[in-house]
Amino acid sequence: MYMAEKTSYEFEAVPQEVDFTLRMTVPALVGAVLDTAGVDARRKGFGIDELNKENVSWVLSRMAIEIDERPRQYASYRIETWVNEFNRMLTTRNFTLHDAEGRTFGRAVTQWCVIDLEARRAVDLTELAARCADKIVDAPSPAEKPRKLAAIAPTCCREHRGVYSDIDFNRHVNTLRYIDMMFDMLPYDRYVADRPLRLDVHFLHECGYGQLLGVGCEERESATLFEISCEGTAAVRASLVWK
Amino acid sequence: MYMAEKTSYEFEAVPQEVDFTLRMTVPALVGAVLDTAGVDARRKGFGIDELNKENVSWVLSRMAIEIDERPRQYASYRIETWVNEFNRMLTTRNFTLHDAEGRTFGRAVTQWCVIDLEARRAVDLTELAARCADKIVDAPSPAEKPRKLAAIAPTCCREHRGVYSDIDFNRHVNTLRYIDMMFDMLPYDRYVADRPLRLDVHFLHECGYGQLLGVGCEERESATLFEISCEGTAAVRASLVWK
Repeated sequence: MYMAEKTSYEFEAVPQEVDFTLRMTVPALVGAVLDTAGVDARRKGFGIDELNKENVSWVLSRMAIEIDERPRQYASYRIETWVNEFNRMLTTRNFTLHDAEGRTFGRAVTQWCVIDLEARRAVDLTELAARCADKIVDAPSPAEKPRKLAAIAPTCCREHRGVYSDIDFNRHVNTLRYIDMMFDMLPYDRYVADRPLRLDVHFLHECGYGQLLGVGCEERESATLFEISCEGTAAVRASLVWK
Repeated sequence: MYMAEKTSYEFEAVPQEVDFTLRMTVPALVGAVLDTAGVDARRKGFGIDELNKENVSWVLSRMAIEIDERPRQYASYRIETWVNEFNRMLTTRNFTLHDAEGRTFGRAVTQWCVIDLEARRAVDLTELAARCADKIVDAPSPAEKPRKLAAIAPTCCREHRGVYSDIDFNRHVNTLRYIDMMFDMLPYDRYVADRPLRLDVHFLHECGYGQLLGVGCEERESATLFEISCEGTAAVRASLVWK
């Protein structure tokens, strides 16, 4: 019944994606993973271009990414992706990241829902799942699915007004900008380290142009926790664990 | 004597580069132009990878870009580039932007110097110019060179602390982030318009991680003027003219 295969995309770590360690930043790697999701969905006929015709769109609900080592500038790498689950509310898309020698240096699990663009409400995926049945790949997720994340008790906080460069075609703050805002809160020595990490993110609420965001951060012994609020409502929660 | 030809690179306007008008943003177009400069210089043997071996690097000094119409999402477009001038202090790299039908929809002229990475001072280009003589293309710049820009009398101002997501491999605020900061100051209705524009930018001083930037903006009848200062020193000046 499951006939589909994983698909593979080639990349190069370009200068505008590296930091002063001359390795790709974590936000740039998250960007490559999310771009891969968009390109692969489009190629298989269920991309946002197709969905938008029915006035619905993919929205990222949760993600988990594990990075063992960041690619060096100009290094080639490859991302493999596959969808292995479609239920009434969510679909699961998986990724593995491989260096030029074929070694796996990263894994990601993302969960997406489809929302009605006018009502801004999640729609039932049963019909779409039936149409996509032959695109499902019978292979397990390469890492633990996105973990539960509770509210945090922030020990540091920054405010940020949603501006033009933050927003996407939908006038909402872009997923990658949230990742940037969280990484921007870290102490400088964290950027120098190239330690394996795992990042879990939940997207709870959309923030828009002109709205006031609060980026909260709580350092625990084993993890850095984040919560971004939008005009008082929790919008994004995340946990960053350094191994 | 001048044997080199213009080189051409293909692009597609991807969803993460468009705004809510479903057209590519001006900062994204500037990004494509600057990426083209980097890739073309590398391909011809005088990229930052080669220069860095001698502990020097390219730095963008001035740029002018004219955009008649912004590409729609998923549109293919092409950037042609050539270097037509090398003097003791500056080299001039030119660009024309063409849509899928071959119509020119943009032009850019950029002027670069080479700096010593330790002394942070411009170096004499005579020797490099001799090495690159066979890469010079005998064709005029496609638009007026970057114009003179005087100090401004800002009527609005925002402050911004240089964070991780702003900086490049050199720990300096990335060129594109300055362009973002300026466009973020515009009133909302400017983002909706798709009017032809010309942007002139001068880079005067480098801003670093943790430094306090002031983004000033002055609206005149025919232009919006910008000045970004860094701890009190003018760092970037720009003029945006809507035609």
